[in-house]
Amino acid sequence: MSVTAPRGFTAAGVTAGLKPSGAKDLALVVNQGPSYASASVFTANRCKANPVLWSQEVVKDGVVRAVVLNSGGANCYTGADGFQTTHSVAERVAAGLGIGAVDVVVCSTGLIGLANDRDLLLEGVDDAVGALGADGGPDAAAAIMTTDTVSKQVVVEGSGWSVGGMAKGAGMLAPQLATMLVVLTTDAEVDADTADRALRAATRVSFDRLDSDGCMSTNDTVTLLASGASGITPSEEDLAEALTRACTDLAMQLLADAEGSDHEIAITVRGAASEDDALEVGRSIARSALFKTAVFGKDPNWGRVLASIGTTSAAFDPADLDVAMNGVWVCRHSTPDEDPAKVDLSGREVTVTVDLKAGDARATIWTNDLTHAYVHENSAYSS
Amino acid sequence: MSVTAPRGFTAAGVTAGLKPSGAKDLALVVNQGPSYASASVFTANRCKANPVLWSQEVVKDGVVRAVVLNSGGANCYTGADGFQTTHSVAERVAAGLGIGAVDVVVCSTGLIGLANDRDLLLEGVDDAVGALGADGGPDAAAAIMTTDTVSKQVVVEGSGWSVGGMAKGAGMLAPQLATMLVVLTTDAEVDADTADRALRAATRVSFDRLDSDGCMSTNDTVTLLASGASGITPSEEDLAEALTRACTDLAMQLLADAEGSDHEIAITVRGAASEDDALEVGRSIARSALFKTAVFGKDPNWGRVLASIGTTSAAFDPADLDVAMNGVWVCRHSTPDEDPAKVDLSGREVTVTVDLKAGDARATIWTNDLTHAYVHENSAYSS
Repeated sequence: MSVTAPRGFTAAGVTAGLKPSGAKDLALVVNQGPSYASASVFTANRCKANPVLWSQEVVKDGVVRAVVLNSGGANCYTGADGFQTTHSVAERVAAGLGIGAVDVVVCSTGLIGLANDRDLLLEGVDDAVGALGADGGPDAAAAIMTTDTVSKQVVVEGSGWSVGGMAKGAGMLAPQLATMLVVLTTDAEVDADTADRALRAATRVSFDRLDSDGCMSTNDTVTLLASGASGITPSEEDLAEALTRACTDLAMQLLADAEGSDHEIAITVRGAASEDDALEVGRSIARSALFKTAVFGKDPNWGRVLASIGTTSAAFDPADLDVAMNGVWVCRHSTPDEDPAKVDLSGREVTVTVDLKAGDARATIWTNDLTHAYVHENSAYSS
Repeated sequence: MSVTAPRGFTAAGVTAGLKPSGAKDLALVVNQGPSYASASVFTANRCKANPVLWSQEVVKDGVVRAVVLNSGGANCYTGADGFQTTHSVAERVAAGLGIGAVDVVVCSTGLIGLANDRDLLLEGVDDAVGALGADGGPDAAAAIMTTDTVSKQVVVEGSGWSVGGMAKGAGMLAPQLATMLVVLTTDAEVDADTADRALRAATRVSFDRLDSDGCMSTNDTVTLLASGASGITPSEEDLAEALTRACTDLAMQLLADAEGSDHEIAITVRGAASEDDALEVGRSIARSALFKTAVFGKDPNWGRVLASIGTTSAAFDPADLDVAMNGVWVCRHSTPDEDPAKVDLSGREVTVTVDLKAGDARATIWTNDLTHAYVHENSAYSS
């Protein structure tokens, strides 16, 4: 039950009417306390949507009591009027809950460059406040879907406390962050500084390493709410581990549902001189249109892997690179080795392993293949 | 006709048998003098093919007397044996022409990771030497085609001297350089240092600004041969201008023939604080899979342009960006302005203009859209 699994939370998902389909499009998650610590991470894109501009200010004091999210429109590049829409939504939530608007995070997702209907949103907020319940997590998770084909939820159990979460995101998935909205909840008793460190430790190795299509979104938000309702204070390490498990689980759900993908590809770079080198090499491969189309075509084209590695500034000897696909070392010392015909790319899961032979650091980047369905979905999305 | 238009050059294009189709696959261009100055630019990819490793050494003394090029195999990631193939080809050319192998540039193109048949290549060299002629330019241009659908040639006239050129390249087109082999010839009398400066000035604003699919090749080579046969020494400025015109013309031919493309897109960034800023912003847009699929779908999705700009470190105010597509200012001050429905994307040529309002610098990057045909061609290429 996602965000309502930990104690101290209510949620709802309702139809405000932004989506022509009439599907649920407005979600509300409320921290009922007794404490209200929070932490958030936002997109690194400098062109941020209005809800992000608002929420960045809201989270600064470490207190968030509610998160309101809508699909059906990103409220991005909509100017001062769009910012006013975000502000009005926060105020309406605050009025309904008897809290301050400055404790309300707002998230929006959908097409960018189009204004959201403010009146519909405000009526939807009233409906959501009325529908809040301790079993509202699944409805909330459904209400934030856009091109997602399934809702994404997770629960991780601690010792007497737990972490719950929901996510949306299916395209524009690139690091810092992938395109997505994520709400995490915990009934652990935790202060805002600890929550912030633990959340950043978790997103750094999960969402930040997801790079479905190299396109960074304008609306990405991950917010953690801690109610303290369990009365238990886990160690920071335990909290970070539970959050990492929750974030990684959600990230893999996003990857598996990425727009039009046929394959989930885990690119592991080992033998790197530094973790940064491993990440740079992994991302360069994940962003190669030629590599990604080859995987779609079930072609273990390791030459395209080496060509991508060569574009980086990482430490390696160009004449001594090893590459495996699905465990078959098709390239050693930058020359052909095992028969590529042994590589079976018929399943959805693909692993690429690169050995740079320059050190002991390693990292994994997750991406998808580049398919006809991706082209179709993204060329037709706004029409 | 292309490389044999200037005086002092012979060329040939023959069938060595590397291509299963039996099409021409080996080209030879020979500078007959009286002088042999040259300049070259190679791929910036650190994982370079064997012919590049060889040719980088050959060009160091500023003298090149012949360029031999094969399609049907890139001789890349083929190890020491592959390097020996390149060396043998250079020696065979040298023996046939009575020159030194260290004056022979070798270029190869085609699939990477596969060895080229050395015997076929050597026999092909003999045939090419026998077929050399002052009208051999078109045959040479045809022999270097891979997935190119047409051969690319150019002639630019100076005052009593001229520049000729041929190019191949249809995929893996990304800057520094695009994936391509280019031979330029001139009968101007010019020393190697001048030729080098003029060639780099030309490639910097032409091939280096072509970014069809963001993928940098392993084999890119541009070589200029100067025969001095006109007896005329143009100013360095005139030479650079003629080379720039030749390189830009060839670059536009490459763009128009890019694998599976439906549109040629010119992205001009103006109002930039520096040329580097303009280039960074232009490239970020050119590499956005979402923007490129939108153009394929004839969707003037300027929100995806802004989202790409936001990923850069260029100087700008995120709330004050203007974007035009095909001359229609669909976005001003980072909000919707003219009706996107006015943007007609039915033709092949698309212009995107971004005003960063941060200075006076500008630059143009050329790219293609991302289409079903691109996915098809690149997922099926090696099968």
